[in-house]
Amino acid sequence: MIRRNIQLNEQGRLRHFLTTEGLKRQMLVDILDTAESLSGVTDQSVKKVPLLRGKTIVNLFFEASTRTRTTFELAAKRLSADVLNLNIAASATKKGETLLDTLHNLQAMHCDMFVVRHADSGAAHFIANHVAPHISVINAGDGSHAHPTQAMLDMFTIRRVKGEFYPLKVAIVGDILNSRVARSQIHALTTLGVTEVRVIAPKTLIPKDVETLGVHVYHDLDEGLNDVDVIIMLRLQNERMQGELLPSEHEYFQLYGLTQERLKSAKSDAIVMHPGPINRGVEIESSVADGPRSVILQQVTHGIAVRMAVMSTCLSSHADRGAA
Amino acid sequence: MIRRNIQLNEQGRLRHFLTTEGLKRQMLVDILDTAESLSGVTDQSVKKVPLLRGKTIVNLFFEASTRTRTTFELAAKRLSADVLNLNIAASATKKGETLLDTLHNLQAMHCDMFVVRHADSGAAHFIANHVAPHISVINAGDGSHAHPTQAMLDMFTIRRVKGEFYPLKVAIVGDILNSRVARSQIHALTTLGVTEVRVIAPKTLIPKDVETLGVHVYHDLDEGLNDVDVIIMLRLQNERMQGELLPSEHEYFQLYGLTQERLKSAKSDAIVMHPGPINRGVEIESSVADGPRSVILQQVTHGIAVRMAVMSTCLSSHADRGAA
Amino acid sequence: MIRRNIQLNEQGRLRHFLTTEGLKRQMLVDILDTAESLSGVTDQSVKKVPLLRGKTIVNLFFEASTRTRTTFELAAKRLSADVLNLNIAASATKKGETLLDTLHNLQAMHCDMFVVRHADSGAAHFIANHVAPHISVINAGDGSHAHPTQAMLDMFTIRRVKGEFYPLKVAIVGDILNSRVARSQIHALTTLGVTEVRVIAPKTLIPKDVETLGVHVYHDLDEGLNDVDVIIMLRLQNERMQGELLPSEHEYFQLYGLTQERLKSAKSDAIVMHPGPINRGVEIESSVADGPRSVILQQVTHGIAVRMAVMSTCLSSHADRGAA
Repeated sequence: MIRRNIQLNEQGRLRHFLTTEGLKRQMLVDILDTAESLSGVTDQSVKKVPLLRGKTIVNLFFEASTRTRTTFELAAKRLSADVLNLNIAASATKKGETLLDTLHNLQAMHCDMFVVRHADSGAAHFIANHVAPHISVINAGDGSHAHPTQAMLDMFTIRRVKGEFYPLKVAIVGDILNSRVARSQIHALTTLGVTEVRVIAPKTLIPKDVETLGVHVYHDLDEGLNDVDVIIMLRLQNERMQGELLPSEHEYFQLYGLTQERLKSAKSDAIVMHPGPINRGVEIESSVADGPRSVILQQVTHGIAVRMAVMSTCLSSHADRGAA
Repeated sequence: MIRRNIQLNEQGRLRHFLTTEGLKRQMLVDILDTAESLSGVTDQSVKKVPLLRGKTIVNLFFEASTRTRTTFELAAKRLSADVLNLNIAASATKKGETLLDTLHNLQAMHCDMFVVRHADSGAAHFIANHVAPHISVINAGDGSHAHPTQAMLDMFTIRRVKGEFYPLKVAIVGDILNSRVARSQIHALTTLGVTEVRVIAPKTLIPKDVETLGVHVYHDLDEGLNDVDVIIMLRLQNERMQGELLPSEHEYFQLYGLTQERLKSAKSDAIVMHPGPINRGVEIESSVADGPRSVILQQVTHGIAVRMAVMSTCLSSHADRGAA
Repeated sequence: MIRRNIQLNEQGRLRHFLTTEGLKRQMLVDILDTAESLSGVTDQSVKKVPLLRGKTIVNLFFEASTRTRTTFELAAKRLSADVLNLNIAASATKKGETLLDTLHNLQAMHCDMFVVRHADSGAAHFIANHVAPHISVINAGDGSHAHPTQAMLDMFTIRRVKGEFYPLKVAIVGDILNSRVARSQIHALTTLGVTEVRVIAPKTLIPKDVETLGVHVYHDLDEGLNDVDVIIMLRLQNERMQGELLPSEHEYFQLYGLTQERLKSAKSDAIVMHPGPINRGVEIESSVADGPRSVILQQVTHGIAVRMAVMSTCLSSHADRGAA
């Protein structure tokens, strides 16, 4: 017996969005197409559509992140949903309530969606495995595991600028080992059919067996950037790196920081991406981050439309179920 | 001259909801009936009614409680009200403003309702005594005095399952002394006409003169549970018990913890309630809390409808006043 | 070449509201007239107009202030805007993001307005100088520089009670040196054409060259209050006064506290104003603050209408730009 992908409902429609891994190409393309049609909403004077009116979306953040929470809150409000922001570290657990009791209470209140951020890898899956049938779960980042909406907004940005994924060469530069963003990007890029995905980092920041994901490993930046169409810089997350053998920030920048000089190795129309927030002068030079090849702020803009698309796609899967 | 109940306006309609004590039976039944008609709203796909559109409801929490605040916030939003969350401990009082100045400022901003949570018994009454005529006050828990919306959602749950209050026997088990929930439940149960209310607790956790409220006192759990229809377990609130002579959590569970074995003393169709959050293994065994007799999560669901009912009832009393 | 006022767009319409200084009289009168027409909204049963539906307003508070944030949040919600509350001290800057990166990210999310509170004088101007053309900035208080919406609600209150600004005599009493409120009031009062503005304070709390603003300086309260129509008391802001030579609170009250006795120096129909929160017994006697000449709570009420007026005026300047 084949175990059904927990992200899909019985009709095979996307119910949870936990990871870009294991989803069919068409499903990712559908999200991008929906985001394309919703991106017009934020350009309008009245930036609101009534798609999720009367739905309750809970930002369930076990790890603080104003930035990510803000994008989900804006996306939900522009879909006319009601939003509840819960910082769990500071509330229920203080009274000793278990995580499952917290979840069961929120679903008893007829909430419709949990947007989950957690420091532990697998937390969003755990929650998705334990919620009632009427609930959808969106992973807004779990440990070093996955951050699928970030990956999809990156895919949206690449498609907007480059048109097609084939035959692009994409390089991801930085702390691959600890990056949930990189992992989700790699799965999305290979599923969407780019020609080549490269990861560029010192040996200490490359996960073992990373080649099994279908990527090529480079330890030299110039070599890795050679002839690529898309450069994705990762944030050096000092807060996630503990006990790693790492050079100083200055040395890191010398070896792996993206400068205008380094950028010359890539194709002349290569674009530069970064999930933010940027450490200027650590992983990227300001003149590159703010320069004409950078699409970093477009990524932020697209993040709203992509999250609106993911939210409305997952919640519409229930209407489906209800009608069945 | 008879002093008018501060909870009622000049036409005798419910304006504030501060306590279940001293309200006529019909008034409580009206709240339950309104909650019944509103409970359909949260089952709908679009969980919103425009009853309180354009009204401003302020969650005025002098004592942090994400859980209770969340239920009021959801109830208000589903009535289409605007909600303002104010954590007073951390704001105005820092600048040395008095409580009354804070209230007067909020009412000058044309807020319509204060949902008040405070560590001091009597705080909600004090506030209700000092607000302008256009304001309603809801007590969301004051010290060890009252928590009337919790009591009403319990009544709603009992009526939903049992149909009628007469001739039910109801046992409340646990820290009666410090429990604002128990006090509000006792008044509601006796007003609504149950046959018998029992309180079960060690002597140190029973208030003096509790019999004057019309309840029977038991110190033995099995004896007290004998033949009851409804068992309400209270939370053992370590944070509220200071200097009480209390056995250890383990001993407490041995004597007063609700287990499947103990449950056999009650009627075979007795239901188990708890205001949450549960201390599993302290006042209740998990197999009971999660078992077929437990209606604990239904209580949470009903909490939204009951709070919607209380909010819309109190605010509609002003329309009345305006028309008079 | 004349440098254009940063507050105005290319058509000369108000785009940002950073200070009352340098704006033409008619522009201030237009804000007051708009506030007058919007003040009816908060008197209605449904306190909402759809003027800013689909707009996103960000409360960007680098300095905590529940009170001011609340008034802007209510004003925005009553205009049907979506509101995002960001406490910047506690979020992005922790991850080392620069202020400009935070701003650029928020505007990439298609936010429409930043309401800025900051401990540094000039912060709102700095932000206005760096935002994209589709963004408006409202100064909600920057250091000891300006607090223009507070000044405009004071002007609104004066006009409501007194009808005309000419030939009023207005006294501002207290810590002029550190007061952003006083500075904004002085510019607004002189622009709107009162006959005389007086500042009354000990020498240590009067800025040098204050006479260049067109005010008369008094060090004696009775003398300064003589024959005035409007008395504006300032809050003694202990948190802003560092290293100033100041008498004790008791001595201050003896010399500059407004009492019923002192009030007799002013005209018999003089009104008493205060931006709040009040230090009772420090700068003002309770019997005066709560007495018949006090319009302090009217100021709070008018604050909502005036902020609604400023927000809708600034955002309508973009529609203008779009149509051009």
